Amino acid sequence: MYKKMFLSWIEEGVVSIPSFLFSYYKKIGLTDLECMTLLHIYSFIENGNDFPTHDEIAERMTLNVEQCSQLIGSLVQRNYLEIIKGKSDNGIYFEKYSLRPLWMRLIDEHILNEKGEIQAQQKDEEGNVF
Amino acid sequence: MYKKMFLSWIEEGVVSIPSFLFSYYKKIGLTDLECMTLLHIYSFIENGNDFPTHDEIAERMTLNVEQCSQLIGSLVQRNYLEIIKGKSDNGIYFEKYSLRPLWMRLIDEHILNEKGEIQAQQKDEEGNVF
Amino acid sequence: MYKKMFLSWIEEGVVSIPSFLFSYYKKIGLTDLECMTLLHIYSFIENGNDFPTHDEIAERMTLNVEQCSQLIGSLVQRNYLEIIKGKSDNGIYFEKYSLRPLWMRLIDEHILNEKGEIQAQQKDEEGNVF
Amino acid sequence: MYKKMFLSWIEEGVVSIPSFLFSYYKKIGLTDLECMTLLHIYSFIENGNDFPTHDEIAERMTLNVEQCSQLIGSLVQRNYLEIIKGKSDNGIYFEKYSLRPLWMRLIDEHILNEKGEIQAQQKDEEGNVF
Repeated sequence: MYKKMFLSWIEEGVVSIPSFLFSYYKKIGLTDLECMTLLHIYSFIENGNDFPTHDEIAERMTLNVEQCSQLIGSLVQRNYLEIIKGKSDNGIYFEKYSLRPLWMRLIDEHILNEKGEIQAQQKDEEGNVF
Repeated sequence: MYKKMFLSWIEEGVVSIPSFLFSYYKKIGLTDLECMTLLHIYSFIENGNDFPTHDEIAERMTLNVEQCSQLIGSLVQRNYLEIIKGKSDNGIYFEKYSLRPLWMRLIDEHILNEKGEIQAQQKDEEGNVF
Repeated sequence: MYKKMFLSWIEEGVVSIPSFLFSYYKKIGLTDLECMTLLHIYSFIENGNDFPTHDEIAERMTLNVEQCSQLIGSLVQRNYLEIIKGKSDNGIYFEKYSLRPLWMRLIDEHILNEKGEIQAQQKDEEGNVF
Repeated sequence: MYKKMFLSWIEEGVVSIPSFLFSYYKKIGLTDLECMTLLHIYSFIENGNDFPTHDEIAERMTLNVEQCSQLIGSLVQRNYLEIIKGKSDNGIYFEKYSLRPLWMRLIDEHILNEKGEIQAQQKDEEGNVF
Protein backbone atom coordinates (compact mmCIF):
# COMPACT_ATOMS: atom_id res chain seq x y z
CA MET A 1 0.00 0.00 0.00
CA TYR A 2 2.87 2.36 0.76
CA LYS A 3 4.11 2.03 -2.77
CA LYS A 4 0.77 3.21 -4.08
CA MET A 5 0.94 6.26 -1.82
CA PHE A 6 4.43 6.97 -2.99
CA LEU A 7 3.34 6.70 -6.60
CA SER A 8 0.44 9.11 -6.15
CA TRP A 9 2.84 11.54 -4.48
CA ILE A 10 5.20 11.42 -7.46
CA GLU A 11 2.40 11.60 -10.01
CA GLU A 12 0.75 14.55 -8.24
CA GLY A 13 4.11 16.24 -8.54
CA VAL A 14 5.24 19.72 -7.65
CA VAL A 15 4.10 23.22 -8.51
CA SER A 16 7.11 25.21 -9.70
CA ILE A 17 6.78 28.89 -8.91
CA PRO A 18 9.23 31.54 -10.17
CA SER A 19 11.29 32.64 -7.14
CA PHE A 20 10.73 36.26 -8.10
CA LEU A 21 7.01 35.94 -7.44
CA PHE A 22 7.82 35.66 -3.74
CA SER A 23 10.14 38.66 -3.72
CA TYR A 24 8.04 40.87 -6.00
CA TYR A 25 4.33 40.24 -5.33
CA LYS A 26 4.06 42.92 -2.66
CA LYS A 27 5.81 45.46 -4.89
CA ILE A 28 3.40 44.81 -7.75
CA GLY A 29 0.45 45.49 -5.47
CA LEU A 30 -0.71 42.09 -4.22
CA THR A 31 -1.52 41.17 -0.63
CA ASP A 32 -0.42 37.89 0.94
CA LEU A 33 -3.92 36.45 0.61
CA GLU A 34 -4.26 37.52 -3.01
CA CYS A 35 -0.94 35.91 -3.88
CA MET A 36 -1.98 32.72 -2.05
CA THR A 37 -5.20 32.62 -4.05
CA LEU A 38 -3.26 33.01 -7.31
CA LEU A 39 -0.98 30.16 -6.20
CA HIS A 40 -4.04 27.96 -5.70
CA ILE A 41 -5.33 28.81 -9.17
CA TYR A 42 -1.86 28.11 -10.60
CA SER A 43 -1.76 24.78 -8.78
CA PHE A 44 -5.16 23.80 -10.23
CA ILE A 45 -4.07 24.80 -13.74
CA GLU A 46 -0.81 22.85 -13.46
CA ASN A 47 -2.81 19.77 -12.43
CA GLY A 48 -5.09 20.02 -15.45
CA ASN A 49 -8.07 22.00 -14.14
CA ASP A 50 -7.86 25.41 -15.78
CA PHE A 51 -11.14 26.81 -14.52
CA PRO A 52 -11.63 25.73 -10.88
CA THR A 53 -14.85 26.98 -9.29
CA HIS A 54 -14.82 29.39 -6.37
CA ASP A 55 -16.05 26.49 -4.24
CA GLU A 56 -13.15 24.27 -5.25
CA ILE A 57 -10.66 27.01 -4.44
CA ALA A 58 -12.30 28.03 -1.15
CA GLU A 59 -12.47 24.39 -0.04
CA ARG A 60 -8.67 24.40 0.20
CA MET A 61 -8.44 27.80 1.87
CA THR A 62 -9.36 29.18 5.28
CA LEU A 63 -11.08 32.03 3.46
CA ASN A 64 -14.78 31.30 2.99
CA VAL A 65 -16.43 31.14 -0.45
CA GLU A 66 -17.78 34.71 -0.35
CA GLN A 67 -14.40 36.17 0.55
CA CYS A 68 -12.78 33.99 -2.10
CA SER A 69 -15.25 35.09 -4.81
CA GLN A 70 -14.78 38.72 -3.92
CA LEU A 71 -11.00 38.38 -3.95
CA ILE A 72 -10.93 36.63 -7.34
CA GLY A 73 -13.32 39.23 -8.77
CA SER A 74 -10.98 41.95 -7.60
CA LEU A 75 -7.93 40.20 -9.09
CA VAL A 76 -9.65 40.00 -12.47
CA GLN A 77 -10.85 43.60 -12.31
CA ARG A 78 -7.42 44.94 -11.33
CA ASN A 79 -5.86 42.86 -14.11
CA TYR A 80 -3.72 40.30 -12.29
CA LEU A 81 -5.81 37.40 -13.53
CA GLU A 82 -7.63 36.92 -16.82
CA ILE A 83 -10.64 34.83 -17.77
CA ILE A 84 -10.33 33.65 -21.35
CA LYS A 85 -13.48 32.63 -23.20
CA GLY A 86 -13.34 30.49 -26.28
CA LYS A 87 -14.88 27.74 -28.34
CA SER A 88 -13.17 24.37 -28.62
CA ASP A 89 -12.71 22.41 -31.86
CA ASN A 90 -15.85 20.39 -31.24
CA GLY A 91 -17.89 23.55 -30.74
CA ILE A 92 -18.07 23.62 -26.95
CA TYR A 93 -17.75 26.99 -25.25
CA PHE A 94 -15.22 27.15 -22.44
CA GLU A 95 -13.77 29.58 -19.94
CA LYS A 96 -10.33 29.31 -18.41
CA TYR A 97 -8.03 31.29 -16.16
CA SER A 98 -4.79 32.74 -17.47
CA LEU A 99 -2.02 34.07 -15.27
CA ARG A 100 -0.46 35.97 -18.15
CA PRO A 101 -1.27 39.40 -16.66
CA LEU A 102 0.54 38.37 -13.47
CA TRP A 103 3.63 37.25 -15.40
CA MET A 104 3.64 40.50 -17.41
CA ARG A 105 3.65 42.53 -14.21
CA LEU A 106 6.43 40.38 -12.76
CA ILE A 107 8.51 40.90 -15.89
CA ASP A 108 7.95 44.67 -15.74
CA GLU A 109 8.98 44.73 -12.09
CA HIS A 110 12.04 42.60 -12.81
CA ILE A 111 13.13 44.90 -15.64
CA LEU A 112 12.63 47.95 -13.40
CA ASN A 113 14.62 46.32 -10.62
CA GLU A 114 17.53 45.27 -12.79
CA LYS A 115 17.69 48.72 -14.40
CA GLY A 116 17.84 50.21 -10.93
CA GLU A 117 20.69 47.90 -10.00
CA ILE A 118 22.65 48.65 -13.16
CA GLN A 119 22.25 52.41 -12.61
CA ALA A 120 23.30 52.03 -9.00
CA GLN A 121 26.37 50.13 -10.16
CA GLN A 122 27.21 52.78 -12.72
CA LYS A 123 26.90 55.55 -10.12
CA ASP A 124 29.08 53.50 -7.85
CA GLU A 125 31.71 53.09 -10.52
CA GLU A 126 31.62 56.78 -11.41
CA GLY A 127 31.97 57.55 -7.74
CA ASN A 128 35.03 55.36 -7.57
CA VAL A 129 36.60 57.13 -10.49
CA PHE A 130 36.54 60.62 -9.06
CA MET B 1 20.84 44.39 -21.02
CA TYR B 2 17.83 42.15 -21.63
CA LYS B 3 20.07 39.12 -21.74
CA LYS B 4 21.36 39.93 -18.29
CA MET B 5 17.80 40.17 -16.98
CA PHE B 6 16.97 36.88 -18.59
CA LEU B 7 20.02 35.28 -17.02
CA SER B 8 19.16 36.51 -13.54
CA TRP B 9 15.64 35.15 -14.00
CA ILE B 10 16.99 31.70 -14.88
CA GLU B 11 19.59 31.74 -12.13
CA GLU B 12 17.05 32.83 -9.52
CA GLY B 13 15.04 29.84 -10.63
CA VAL B 14 11.84 28.36 -9.31
CA VAL B 15 10.61 27.16 -5.95
CA SER B 16 9.13 23.69 -6.37
CA ILE B 17 6.36 23.00 -3.89
CA PRO B 18 4.69 19.57 -3.47
CA SER B 19 1.20 19.89 -5.00
CA PHE B 20 -0.26 18.19 -1.94
CA LEU B 21 0.75 21.13 0.25
CA PHE B 22 -1.90 23.20 -1.52
CA SER B 23 -4.61 20.57 -1.13
CA TYR B 24 -3.73 19.54 2.44
CA TYR B 25 -2.54 22.60 4.40
CA LYS B 26 -5.98 23.53 5.65
CA LYS B 27 -6.66 19.93 6.74
CA ILE B 28 -3.44 19.80 8.75
CA GLY B 29 -4.44 22.95 10.62
CA LEU B 30 -2.73 25.83 8.83
CA THR B 31 -4.34 29.11 7.79
CA ASP B 32 -3.72 30.71 4.40
CA LEU B 33 -1.39 33.27 5.95
CA GLU B 34 0.56 30.65 7.89
CA CYS B 35 1.05 28.59 4.75
CA MET B 36 2.16 31.69 2.84
CA THR B 37 4.72 32.44 5.55
CA LEU B 38 6.05 28.88 5.35
CA LEU B 39 6.33 29.26 1.57
CA HIS B 40 8.43 32.40 2.08
CA ILE B 41 10.72 30.56 4.47
CA TYR B 42 10.96 27.67 2.01
CA SER B 43 11.79 30.11 -0.79
CA PHE B 44 14.58 31.68 1.31
CA ILE B 45 16.01 28.24 2.17
CA GLU B 46 15.94 27.13 -1.47
CA ASN B 47 17.86 30.26 -2.42
CA GLY B 48 20.57 29.59 0.14
CA ASN B 49 19.42 31.59 3.18
CA ASP B 50 18.33 29.04 5.77
CA PHE B 51 17.68 31.45 8.61
CA PRO B 52 16.02 34.60 7.25
CA THR B 53 15.23 37.23 9.89
CA HIS B 54 11.65 38.23 10.67
CA ASP B 55 12.45 41.56 9.00
CA GLU B 56 13.57 39.90 5.78
CA ILE B 57 10.42 37.80 5.67
CA ALA B 58 8.05 40.65 6.57
CA GLU B 59 9.65 42.90 3.96
CA ARG B 60 8.20 40.63 1.27
CA MET B 61 4.79 40.30 2.93
CA THR B 62 1.88 42.64 3.56
CA LEU B 63 1.92 41.41 7.16
CA ASN B 64 3.97 43.75 9.36
CA VAL B 65 7.01 42.56 11.33
CA GLU B 66 5.14 42.11 14.62
CA GLN B 67 2.44 39.99 13.00
CA CYS B 68 5.10 38.04 11.17
CA SER B 69 7.11 37.38 14.36
CA GLN B 70 4.01 36.27 16.22
CA LEU B 71 2.96 33.99 13.38
CA ILE B 72 6.39 32.34 13.10
CA GLY B 73 6.54 31.90 16.87
CA SER B 74 3.20 30.15 16.76
CA LEU B 75 4.31 27.89 13.89
CA VAL B 76 7.36 26.80 15.86
CA GLN B 77 5.36 26.28 19.05
CA ARG B 78 2.64 24.25 17.29
CA ASN B 79 5.35 22.19 15.58
CA TYR B 80 5.01 23.04 11.91
CA LEU B 81 8.43 24.65 11.74
CA GLU B 82 11.62 23.79 13.58
CA ILE B 83 14.64 25.87 14.52
CA ILE B 84 17.77 23.73 14.50
CA LYS B 85 20.77 24.89 16.48
CA GLY B 86 24.21 23.55 15.77
CA LYS B 87 27.91 24.19 15.56
CA SER B 88 29.67 24.17 12.20
CA ASP B 89 32.98 22.45 11.46
CA ASN B 90 34.93 25.61 12.12
CA GLY B 91 33.29 26.07 15.50
CA ILE B 92 30.70 28.71 14.61
CA TYR B 93 27.26 28.38 16.20
CA PHE B 94 24.34 28.60 13.80
CA GLU B 95 20.58 28.43 13.75
CA LYS B 96 18.50 27.37 10.78
CA TYR B 97 14.90 26.64 9.91
CA SER B 98 13.77 23.16 9.02
CA LEU B 99 10.44 22.36 7.38
CA ARG B 100 10.70 18.70 8.36
CA PRO B 101 7.75 18.90 10.81
CA LEU B 102 5.59 20.27 8.00
CA TRP B 103 6.58 17.45 5.63
CA MET B 104 5.91 14.84 8.35
CA ARG B 105 2.40 16.19 8.82
CA LEU B 106 1.81 16.24 5.07
CA ILE B 107 2.92 12.62 4.83
CA ASP B 108 0.60 11.62 7.70
CA GLU B 109 -2.30 13.40 6.03
CA HIS B 110 -1.49 11.80 2.68
CA ILE B 111 -1.39 8.31 4.23
CA LEU B 112 -4.71 8.95 6.00
CA ASN B 113 -6.28 10.19 2.78
CA GLU B 114 -5.10 7.30 0.64
CA LYS B 115 -6.26 4.79 3.26
CA GLY B 116 -9.65 6.46 3.20
CA GLU B 117 -9.79 6.19 -0.57
CA ILE B 118 -8.78 2.55 -0.57
CA GLN B 119 -11.41 1.71 2.05
CA ALA B 120 -14.05 3.62 0.10
CA GLN B 121 -13.08 1.65 -3.00
CA GLN B 122 -13.30 -1.65 -1.13
CA LYS B 123 -16.75 -0.79 0.21
CA ASP B 124 -17.76 0.17 -3.29
CA GLU B 125 -16.56 -3.12 -4.67
CA GLU B 126 -18.29 -5.07 -1.91
CA GLY B 127 -21.43 -3.10 -2.66
CA ASN B 128 -21.17 -4.10 -6.27
CA VAL B 129 -20.86 -7.75 -5.37
CA PHE B 130 -24.14 -8.03 -3.49
CA MET C 1 9.65 42.20 -28.14
CA TYR C 2 11.87 41.11 -25.26
CA LYS C 3 8.87 40.99 -22.97
CA LYS C 4 7.16 38.56 -25.28
CA MET C 5 10.24 36.32 -25.22
CA PHE C 6 10.30 36.50 -21.47
CA LEU C 7 6.65 35.58 -21.29
CA SER C 8 7.06 32.54 -23.53
CA TRP C 9 9.99 31.45 -21.36
CA ILE C 10 7.86 31.62 -18.22
CA GLU C 11 4.87 29.98 -19.85
CA GLU C 12 6.98 27.17 -21.28
CA GLY C 13 8.14 26.62 -17.72
CA VAL C 14 10.35 23.96 -16.22
CA VAL C 15 10.39 20.19 -16.16
CA SER C 16 10.72 19.04 -12.56
CA ILE C 17 12.52 15.73 -12.28
CA PRO C 18 12.86 13.78 -9.01
CA SER C 19 16.52 14.13 -7.93
CA PHE C 20 16.66 10.41 -7.25
CA LEU C 21 16.17 9.66 -10.95
CA PHE C 22 19.68 11.02 -11.55
CA SER C 23 21.25 9.02 -8.74
CA TYR C 24 19.33 5.78 -9.37
CA TYR C 25 18.77 5.33 -13.12
CA LYS C 26 21.98 3.39 -13.68
CA LYS C 27 21.22 1.11 -10.73
CA ILE C 28 17.77 0.26 -12.08
CA GLY C 29 19.29 -0.76 -15.40
CA LEU C 30 19.03 2.27 -17.67
CA THR C 31 21.78 3.69 -19.87
CA ASP C 32 22.47 7.43 -20.15
CA LEU C 33 20.79 7.56 -23.55
CA GLU C 34 17.75 5.62 -22.36
CA CYS C 35 17.31 7.97 -19.43
CA MET C 36 17.68 10.98 -21.73
CA THR C 37 14.97 9.60 -24.00
CA LEU C 38 12.65 9.11 -21.02
CA LEU C 39 13.35 12.70 -19.98
CA HIS C 40 12.30 13.87 -23.44
CA ILE C 41 9.07 11.89 -23.22
CA TYR C 42 8.47 13.31 -19.74
CA SER C 43 9.08 16.83 -21.04
CA PHE C 44 6.56 16.30 -23.86
CA ILE C 45 3.95 14.93 -21.42
CA GLU C 46 4.46 17.83 -19.01
CA ASN C 47 3.88 20.25 -21.89
CA GLY C 48 0.61 18.61 -22.86
CA ASN C 49 1.65 16.12 -25.57
CA ASP C 50 1.29 12.68 -24.01
CA PHE C 51 2.03 10.66 -27.13
CA PRO C 52 4.85 12.32 -29.07
CA THR C 53 5.85 10.50 -32.26
CA HIS C 54 9.30 8.96 -32.68
CA ASP C 55 9.99 11.72 -35.21
CA GLU C 56 9.11 14.46 -32.73
CA ILE C 57 11.39 12.92 -30.11
CA ALA C 58 14.27 12.22 -32.50
CA GLU C 59 14.08 15.77 -33.87
CA ARG C 60 15.30 17.03 -30.49
CA MET C 61 17.97 14.36 -30.08
CA THR C 62 21.27 13.56 -31.77
CA LEU C 63 20.06 9.97 -32.06
CA ASN C 64 18.43 9.36 -35.45
CA VAL C 65 14.82 8.20 -35.81
CA GLU C 66 15.68 4.52 -36.26
CA GLN C 67 17.86 4.47 -33.13
CA CYS C 68 15.19 6.36 -31.26
CA SER C 69 12.41 3.95 -32.30
CA GLN C 70 14.50 0.96 -31.35
CA LEU C 71 15.38 2.47 -27.99
CA ILE C 72 11.75 3.32 -27.16
CA GLY C 73 10.64 -0.15 -28.24
CA SER C 74 13.19 -1.67 -25.90
CA LEU C 75 12.08 0.60 -23.00
CA VAL C 76 8.48 -0.54 -23.45
CA GLN C 77 9.47 -4.18 -23.77
CA ARG C 78 11.70 -4.10 -20.69
CA ASN C 79 8.91 -2.34 -18.77
CA TYR C 80 10.31 1.10 -18.06
CA LEU C 81 7.71 2.84 -20.19
CA GLU C 82 4.08 1.94 -20.81
CA ILE C 83 1.76 2.70 -23.71
CA ILE C 84 -1.80 3.05 -22.46
CA LYS C 85 -4.63 2.57 -24.93
CA GLY C 86 -8.08 3.87 -24.23
CA LYS C 87 -11.24 5.45 -25.53
CA SER C 88 -12.13 9.02 -24.61
CA ASP C 89 -15.57 10.20 -23.50
CA ASN C 90 -16.49 11.21 -27.01
CA GLY C 91 -15.56 7.80 -28.37
CA ILE C 92 -12.15 8.58 -29.82
CA TYR C 93 -9.43 5.96 -29.39
CA PHE C 94 -6.15 7.25 -28.01
CA GLU C 95 -2.71 6.05 -27.01
CA LYS C 96 -0.50 7.73 -24.47
CA TYR C 97 2.78 7.14 -22.70
CA SER C 98 2.90 6.54 -18.98
CA LEU C 99 6.09 6.70 -16.91
CA ARG C 100 4.45 4.79 -14.05
CA PRO C 101 6.70 1.71 -14.51
CA LEU C 102 9.75 3.97 -14.20
CA TRP C 103 8.46 5.56 -10.98
CA MET C 104 7.66 2.11 -9.53
CA ARG C 105 11.22 0.98 -10.16
CA LEU C 106 12.60 4.18 -8.63
CA ILE C 107 10.46 3.63 -5.53
CA ASP C 108 11.65 0.02 -5.22
CA GLU C 109 15.26 1.13 -5.53
CA HIS C 110 14.74 3.92 -3.01
CA ILE C 111 13.19 1.49 -0.50
CA LEU C 112 16.06 -0.95 -1.01
CA ASN C 113 18.60 1.82 -0.53
CA GLU C 114 17.06 3.23 2.61
CA LYS C 115 16.74 -0.26 4.11
CA GLY C 116 20.42 -0.78 3.39
CA GLU C 117 21.28 2.47 5.13
CA ILE C 118 19.16 1.67 8.15
CA GLN C 119 20.75 -1.77 8.46
CA ALA C 120 24.20 -0.29 8.10
CA GLN C 121 23.36 2.18 10.84
CA GLN C 122 22.08 -0.57 13.09
CA LYS C 123 25.22 -2.62 12.58
CA ASP C 124 27.23 0.47 13.30
CA GLU C 125 25.37 1.06 16.51
CA GLU C 126 25.67 -2.58 17.55
CA GLY C 127 29.35 -2.38 16.77
CA ASN C 128 29.63 0.63 19.01
CA VAL C 129 27.91 -1.16 21.85
CA PHE C 130 30.27 -4.08 22.09
CA MET D 1 10.16 3.16 8.18
CA TYR D 2 8.08 4.15 5.14
CA LYS D 3 7.60 7.61 6.55
CA LYS D 4 11.34 8.08 6.74
CA MET D 5 11.67 7.04 3.10
CA PHE D 6 8.94 9.43 2.16
CA LEU D 7 10.66 12.23 4.02
CA SER D 8 14.00 11.64 2.35
CA TRP D 9 12.21 11.65 -1.02
CA ILE D 10 10.66 15.05 -0.29
CA GLU D 11 13.86 16.48 1.15
CA GLU D 12 15.93 15.28 -1.81
CA GLY D 13 13.42 17.13 -3.95
CA VAL D 14 13.32 17.76 -7.66
CA VAL D 15 15.68 19.22 -10.21
CA SER D 16 13.81 21.86 -12.21
CA ILE D 17 15.11 22.18 -15.74
CA PRO D 18 13.96 24.88 -18.18
CA SER D 19 11.74 23.14 -20.76
CA PHE D 20 13.60 24.92 -23.54
CA LEU D 21 16.79 23.05 -22.69
CA PHE D 22 15.15 19.88 -24.02
CA SER D 23 13.94 21.53 -27.22
CA TYR D 24 17.09 23.57 -27.90
CA TYR D 25 20.16 21.60 -26.77
CA LYS D 26 20.69 19.93 -30.13
CA LYS D 27 20.35 23.26 -31.95
CA ILE D 28 23.01 24.87 -29.75
CA GLY D 29 25.43 22.08 -30.59
CA LEU D 30 25.17 19.57 -27.74
CA THR D 31 24.86 15.81 -28.11
CA ASP D 32 22.44 13.75 -25.99
CA LEU D 33 25.30 12.49 -23.82
CA GLU D 34 26.74 15.97 -23.33
CA CYS D 35 23.36 17.31 -22.27
CA MET D 36 22.89 14.38 -19.88
CA THR D 37 26.27 15.14 -18.32
CA LEU D 38 25.32 18.79 -17.85
CA LEU D 39 22.06 17.65 -16.21
CA HIS D 40 24.08 15.55 -13.76
CA ILE D 41 26.29 18.53 -12.91
CA TYR D 42 23.18 20.70 -12.50
CA SER D 43 21.63 18.08 -10.22
CA PHE D 44 24.77 18.01 -8.05
CA ILE D 45 24.84 21.82 -7.84
CA GLU D 46 21.15 21.99 -6.91
CA ASN D 47 21.80 19.51 -4.13
CA GLY D 48 24.64 21.56 -2.69
CA ASN D 49 27.73 20.05 -4.32
CA ASP D 50 28.98 22.64 -6.78
CA PHE D 51 32.17 20.87 -7.80
CA PRO D 52 31.49 17.14 -8.12
CA THR D 53 34.51 15.08 -9.14
CA HIS D 54 34.62 13.17 -12.42
CA ASP D 55 34.36 10.00 -10.36
CA GLU D 56 31.20 11.15 -8.61
CA ILE D 57 29.60 12.04 -11.94
CA ALA D 58 30.70 8.88 -13.73
CA GLU D 59 29.48 6.71 -10.87
CA ARG D 60 25.92 7.71 -11.79
CA MET D 61 26.42 7.31 -15.53
CA THR D 62 26.97 4.39 -17.87
CA LEU D 63 29.87 6.35 -19.36
CA ASN D 64 33.15 5.37 -17.72
CA VAL D 65 35.37 7.87 -15.90
CA GLU D 66 37.73 8.44 -18.84
CA GLN D 67 34.87 9.17 -21.24
CA CYS D 68 33.28 11.39 -18.64
CA SER D 69 36.49 13.38 -18.04
CA GLN D 70 37.02 13.84 -21.74
CA LEU D 71 33.42 14.95 -22.25
CA ILE D 72 33.56 17.48 -19.41
CA GLY D 73 36.90 18.80 -20.66
CA SER D 74 35.36 19.33 -24.09
CA LEU D 75 32.30 21.10 -22.60
CA VAL D 76 34.55 23.53 -20.76
CA GLN D 77 36.77 24.10 -23.79
CA ARG D 78 33.81 24.70 -26.12
CA ASN D 79 32.32 27.06 -23.55
CA TYR D 80 29.15 25.33 -22.41
CA LEU D 81 30.42 24.90 -18.86
CA GLU D 82 32.65 27.12 -16.78
CA ILE D 83 34.97 26.40 -13.88
CA ILE D 84 35.08 29.35 -11.53
CA LYS D 85 38.06 29.70 -9.22
CA GLY D 86 37.90 31.86 -6.15
CA LYS D 87 38.89 32.41 -2.56
CA SER D 88 36.29 32.20 0.18
CA ASP D 89 35.92 34.69 3.05
CA ASN D 90 38.03 32.54 5.33
CA GLY D 91 40.83 32.36 2.78
CA ILE D 92 40.19 28.92 1.33
CA TYR D 93 40.62 28.48 -2.42
CA PHE D 94 37.73 26.82 -4.19
CA GLU D 95 36.65 25.77 -7.64
CA LYS D 96 33.07 25.38 -8.75
CA TYR D 97 31.09 24.70 -11.89
CA SER D 98 28.86 27.35 -13.40
CA LEU D 99 26.24 26.64 -16.06
CA ARG D 100 26.03 30.32 -17.00
CA PRO D 101 27.55 29.76 -20.48
CA LEU D 102 24.86 27.15 -21.16
CA TRP D 103 22.06 29.52 -20.10
CA MET D 104 23.52 32.32 -22.24
CA ARG D 105 23.46 30.06 -25.29
CA LEU D 106 19.90 28.97 -24.53
CA ILE D 107 18.82 32.61 -24.26
CA ASP D 108 20.50 33.44 -27.58
CA GLU D 109 18.78 30.50 -29.25
CA HIS D 110 15.43 31.46 -27.72
CA ILE D 111 15.76 35.05 -28.95
CA LEU D 112 16.69 33.82 -32.43
CA ASN D 113 13.74 31.44 -32.46
CA GLU D 114 11.18 33.98 -31.33
CA LYS D 115 12.47 36.53 -33.84
CA GLY D 116 12.06 33.90 -36.55
CA GLU D 117 8.48 33.25 -35.45
CA ILE D 118 7.60 36.92 -35.35
CA GLN D 119 9.01 37.46 -38.85
CA ALA D 120 7.15 34.40 -40.12
CA GLN D 121 3.96 35.81 -38.62
CA GLN D 122 4.55 39.19 -40.22
CA LYS D 123 5.12 37.61 -43.62
CA ASP D 124 1.98 35.60 -43.10
CA GLU D 125 -0.01 38.69 -42.28
CA GLU D 126 1.41 40.57 -45.25
CA GLY D 127 0.53 37.60 -47.40
CA ASN D 128 -3.01 37.73 -46.10
CA VAL D 129 -3.29 41.39 -46.94
CA PHE D 130 -2.58 41.05 -50.64
